[in-house]
Amino acid sequence: MRDTYREQLDAVVNDLVKLSQMVSTATRNSSRALLQADIQLAEQVISDDAQIDNLAADLEQRCFALLALQAPVAGELRTVVVALRLLADLTRMGDLAAHVAKIARLRYPEHAVPADLEPNFSRMADVAIKMIHEASDALRNRDTEEARRMAARDEEMDDLRSSQFRLMLADNWEHGVEAAVDVALLGRYFERIADHAVTMGREVIYIVDGELSSEEIWS
Amino acid sequence: MRDTYREQLDAVVNDLVKLSQMVSTATRNSSRALLQADIQLAEQVISDDAQIDNLAADLEQRCFALLALQAPVAGELRTVVVALRLLADLTRMGDLAAHVAKIARLRYPEHAVPADLEPNFSRMADVAIKMIHEASDALRNRDTEEARRMAARDEEMDDLRSSQFRLMLADNWEHGVEAAVDVALLGRYFERIADHAVTMGREVIYIVDGELSSEEIWS
Repeated sequence: MRDTYREQLDAVVNDLVKLSQMVSTATRNSSRALLQADIQLAEQVISDDAQIDNLAADLEQRCFALLALQAPVAGELRTVVVALRLLADLTRMGDLAAHVAKIARLRYPEHAVPADLEPNFSRMADVAIKMIHEASDALRNRDTEEARRMAARDEEMDDLRSSQFRLMLADNWEHGVEAAVDVALLGRYFERIADHAVTMGREVIYIVDGELSSEEIWS
Repeated sequence: MRDTYREQLDAVVNDLVKLSQMVSTATRNSSRALLQADIQLAEQVISDDAQIDNLAADLEQRCFALLALQAPVAGELRTVVVALRLLADLTRMGDLAAHVAKIARLRYPEHAVPADLEPNFSRMADVAIKMIHEASDALRNRDTEEARRMAARDEEMDDLRSSQFRLMLADNWEHGVEAAVDVALLGRYFERIADHAVTMGREVIYIVDGELSSEEIWS
């Protein structure tokens, strides 16, 4: 009975890793759609978001069932509760990638991002995707060192966002209000994807290290 | 033993209602700080956010303890799991109110919001606060009708946001790029506060109606 429970829990974690990969793909495709003004790819990100939502909904039901069907022991309980949070983070990250794709679609055939900001957004997307992979690897390998390294990347994300503001608010900004509004919101979406990845990292640390000092956490 | 469990769960729900009131106050104060360029009030919202975070952290520990110490029955389990989500929503809403206050502080002694957009933002804040109260009342009274009414208000929020974009992107926008970027982000923050209130409404429906058809939900 407990073996089956453990297997079901491992299957949930495996599917969370799969969900992370789907979110990584959505983020990658949304940034390509944005920077290349690729309307097909933008549409694909928007329609594929339903798959992320569906897998998340399925995982949620399985987590509830695991909580309800058999009282989990402390480490398992923590994993199930954190799994519910991880899937909330991943669902939201998928939504944010779809928001990016919707701005790309709205401005098509124009490019939403001015050419001089393309390297910045390209790097922002790369950092966000790298952070999703790190969070996913940390979860799969129960590797808290990996999770802890993510904070440094988040600083780079903050720097990239600050650069955007400097460019937009400089006297020589020549792209007008619409492009500035797009850049402000797009920058926010990528920053939020990265924030959720950092949160995922913290949640993995909680799953893994929580087991080492359970008295402290459950007191 | 079960009576004590029920009492502890009721205390968690009561504190969630209290947390909602703190978030409502933060939202109200952040909009006043914004529209009146009130630096003291802005600072207060930013520093008071720690109180929201502290109560949320305390509630989280109590929810974990309720899950760990005694296997809850279905309705209780659902309430505890949803309580964990409600407090995540409320924590985030508090962060968003603090973001609004930070923009007010950044632009002080100037007003971040141009005068012709003040009525729009004032209404946005009112709608968001009304929605927080509705979500909180729905939770306290286990009133799903209240929760369902919230969707209509969310439509007004969308309309207000669309009006902002129309004004910013019109040819006669005379407030420059910085004000447009501020308005875009501020509008987003209030919209997200409202989104979280709608989510809270759905979560309350799940707590209440889930008990009426538990087979369906736990199957």
